[in-house]
Amino acid sequence: MDTWRTAIVDAGPDHIRVRGHDVLELMKRATFTDHIFLLHHQRLPSEGERRLLDAILVGGADHGAGAPSCAAARLAASGNRESLSAAIAAGILAIGDEHGGAGSSCMELIRQGLGRARAGSRSFDAVAAELVGEAKQAKARLPGFGHRVHSKIDPRVAVIFGLAKDAGLEGDGIRFVRALEAAIAAGIKPIPLNIDGALAAVLVDLGFPALFGRLIFIISRVAGISAEVLEEHTREKAMRIKIPVEYDGVPPVKDGQ
Amino acid sequence: MDTWRTAIVDAGPDHIRVRGHDVLELMKRATFTDHIFLLHHQRLPSEGERRLLDAILVGGADHGAGAPSCAAARLAASGNRESLSAAIAAGILAIGDEHGGAGSSCMELIRQGLGRARAGSRSFDAVAAELVGEAKQAKARLPGFGHRVHSKIDPRVAVIFGLAKDAGLEGDGIRFVRALEAAIAAGIKPIPLNIDGALAAVLVDLGFPALFGRLIFIISRVAGISAEVLEEHTREKAMRIKIPVEYDGVPPVKDGQ
Amino acid sequence: MDTWRTAIVDAGPDHIRVRGHDVLELMKRATFTDHIFLLHHQRLPSEGERRLLDAILVGGADHGAGAPSCAAARLAASGNRESLSAAIAAGILAIGDEHGGAGSSCMELIRQGLGRARAGSRSFDAVAAELVGEAKQAKARLPGFGHRVHSKIDPRVAVIFGLAKDAGLEGDGIRFVRALEAAIAAGIKPIPLNIDGALAAVLVDLGFPALFGRLIFIISRVAGISAEVLEEHTREKAMRIKIPVEYDGVPPVKDGQ
Amino acid sequence: MDTWRTAIVDAGPDHIRVRGHDVLELMKRATFTDHIFLLHHQRLPSEGERRLLDAILVGGADHGAGAPSCAAARLAASGNRESLSAAIAAGILAIGDEHGGAGSSCMELIRQGLGRARAGSRSFDAVAAELVGEAKQAKARLPGFGHRVHSKIDPRVAVIFGLAKDAGLEGDGIRFVRALEAAIAAGIKPIPLNIDGALAAVLVDLGFPALFGRLIFIISRVAGISAEVLEEHTREKAMRIKIPVEYDGVPPVKDGQ
Repeated sequence: MDTWRTAIVDAGPDHIRVRGHDVLELMKRATFTDHIFLLHHQRLPSEGERRLLDAILVGGADHGAGAPSCAAARLAASGNRESLSAAIAAGILAIGDEHGGAGSSCMELIRQGLGRARAGSRSFDAVAAELVGEAKQAKARLPGFGHRVHSKIDPRVAVIFGLAKDAGLEGDGIRFVRALEAAIAAGIKPIPLNIDGALAAVLVDLGFPALFGRLIFIISRVAGISAEVLEEHTREKAMRIKIPVEYDGVPPVKDGQ
Repeated sequence: MDTWRTAIVDAGPDHIRVRGHDVLELMKRATFTDHIFLLHHQRLPSEGERRLLDAILVGGADHGAGAPSCAAARLAASGNRESLSAAIAAGILAIGDEHGGAGSSCMELIRQGLGRARAGSRSFDAVAAELVGEAKQAKARLPGFGHRVHSKIDPRVAVIFGLAKDAGLEGDGIRFVRALEAAIAAGIKPIPLNIDGALAAVLVDLGFPALFGRLIFIISRVAGISAEVLEEHTREKAMRIKIPVEYDGVPPVKDGQ
Repeated sequence: MDTWRTAIVDAGPDHIRVRGHDVLELMKRATFTDHIFLLHHQRLPSEGERRLLDAILVGGADHGAGAPSCAAARLAASGNRESLSAAIAAGILAIGDEHGGAGSSCMELIRQGLGRARAGSRSFDAVAAELVGEAKQAKARLPGFGHRVHSKIDPRVAVIFGLAKDAGLEGDGIRFVRALEAAIAAGIKPIPLNIDGALAAVLVDLGFPALFGRLIFIISRVAGISAEVLEEHTREKAMRIKIPVEYDGVPPVKDGQ
Repeated sequence: MDTWRTAIVDAGPDHIRVRGHDVLELMKRATFTDHIFLLHHQRLPSEGERRLLDAILVGGADHGAGAPSCAAARLAASGNRESLSAAIAAGILAIGDEHGGAGSSCMELIRQGLGRARAGSRSFDAVAAELVGEAKQAKARLPGFGHRVHSKIDPRVAVIFGLAKDAGLEGDGIRFVRALEAAIAAGIKPIPLNIDGALAAVLVDLGFPALFGRLIFIISRVAGISAEVLEEHTREKAMRIKIPVEYDGVPPVKDGQ
């Protein structure tokens, strides 16, 4: 097998360095959020950048035991008491396009929009209207907009954008999702920006690739899944979960007669 | 990295051999059950051995969508439509000591009993009574006995043992679990042998190690999980599963004021 | 939570039926391959259909410990000795678009081709030439054709198609991939049909949906992963696997000074 | 199905509260490390507690691409480009008793020691000597001591214990592992405390249960696995990993002749 190459960790007999930083020094001074930023971004964050990433990580960690990620982890913990990592992995596997996927999809949309605006020296409003028109024609949902519960306004958006403003980190990502929100209201109907759209805008402004939208949700949610699994182990009996099922298939078949 | 050693597959530029057998020839003549036997046992089975393994594989594949393995897979499929392997893996992760673990635990018990009988030239009845006494004192459950639903008799036991008899494959494993069943009835109360105890006895008689009791359940159940995931993809909407949750923790805390 | 609906298993207090068949009867007579067919196809297979499915399941189970699926399982078993299901799940998770995905992609291609031929009452040759032209223009690979090792001919194709012929089960799927192979040779260069293309053709002819191309590979490969994990547990020490890594990132950074 | 109970998250139509704290307020003020503490400990940490948990989380995140957790994730990413969560889950599944398990095992050992000391009003030195004697007799390793690379001293221990001292958080956990270290040197030979022993002592002093020793390593390592998977996706081709394998099993068998 070839030797693997990596630009992340340099581990020698007497040192471990992450992106060039001595891990011992990082342990003394960096926060876990700094380290997450460093691992994925190749430098440590500023104070404002750290605050924004903390807000995103805190906000996504756990929305309740009934979400597919937490529920799948609890089911695995219910049958498999041997391995905590098995239960946590089962929870992560429920994360995908439909659960936790809107952030990275919205980052792609923003990057596409910013690319068109820059390439054609066009205004964000014009490009946003174009993208909304295309989505309308394709009958495609626009990721990052609309919410089952927060149909009028998602209060987490104001928190995220307020932190970005306080830190002087409002960038083209935020400006473009606001242009998209206005274009949706004009071209379809008012559908408010949701938390996925807000964090997508901020992560674009912080310079992260679209895949990171998916990864940061997993990193964040693992903290919640972990707590849910701990509660399942310490509070509930094994095999306690029984899901009611109704058979509606073909009637009994006579075999072997 | 060192080169890995294996005694399973020999793959060259113009051949793949499994335990020395040419895969092309196996594809023409062997059944999947033959192949499973070969992969784990280093030879092909006799007709009777194949029939027994088929019965075990068929019997464990799927007992309903509400079992933790199938339900965890469906939850993962509900949130993550991108990856079939993610959903199937989530289902497998719910298999462990509490779900699908009794077979291999009973195989360990049988091996322990047969070991004591052989080492001390003692009767199965005497050793079985001893093991039951130890379990009683330790307040430990005896794996392979008792069933929530089949409290009187587990009808699958008769099927498995009937096939073993027809094939002339009744061995010490079967004789020992029968001795255990009698010792339980005498020392505790009548608790019937269940399917896990029956397959454990048969797998010991077929010469498999105890770990295989766990592995064959996984191999078997993957077939059922796969069908459940296919049904979830083709019949149900993403994110359809909502589990009702009641919060009973501490009341609201005032922050930041 | 709503009660879940399913057309697969009907489990009552005194019975388990799969697609209407009593599991006790299936245990006596059906093979595991019959059962896999039944779980995904809603009826038991004919003898010829079973033979074809057996060949596919046997052929895909294990091609060597170094494949991503088997290697990931061995790595997990190396660090996590607590849970067999964790190691097997890790192996399954390496299966995806790039590893084990060509079969279902080729099934989609065949279904697309057969659909165009039927809708337009066109010949398979004309439709195949059209699809090859489109792939050429899009610089897309045609799934099911070409092989790193078997550059001239994949010998497993003849085995699969020979069994289909013997069983009188050659259908439009087989005819269409042959038309594709000819169109590729005429329009690009001779690239032989591989095992993925052969099984895709057969599975279309057996009436399975394209997703089943992915699922049957997982079911098959789990048998091999299981044997690889058993070997890792019984023959190798924990944590034995060391992968050589070379750091080529930024040089050391001075912190905290 | 019964409604699930939980004391972690209270999610209503207009609020999400974690352990009673409004998530919006947490997003504004809490760090991710605060939130991890809160999810598992039912209150927010003090500044010193947060600093200690940050050091542990930073220190465990990534020690190199060749560790089983990171390597299994990269293998999964190599074959399965469809799903980031599949690759991360594969990495987590390599974490278990042998990889990442020493911290929680050492926490169990400390709790056992502290329990004996309190129950019998005995000195830490006496109980530590007793535990070391028992381990010596059982030929069992003492988790948290010794290191392949850092055979003389693990420099991370001084960092962790220095932070604990600075924060005034040295407790019985730290005192007891120091007693264990002395008892090992006296009863066996000098084997230095390692990072797992240091974090175990600190986590006991912070009031966490032993299972959390395993969970915090998973939470920490997911950050590193995520970065490794991102690098695999963006820098390496699919299916690039080839592991050299040597077959040493039975010679070719003649079939069907």
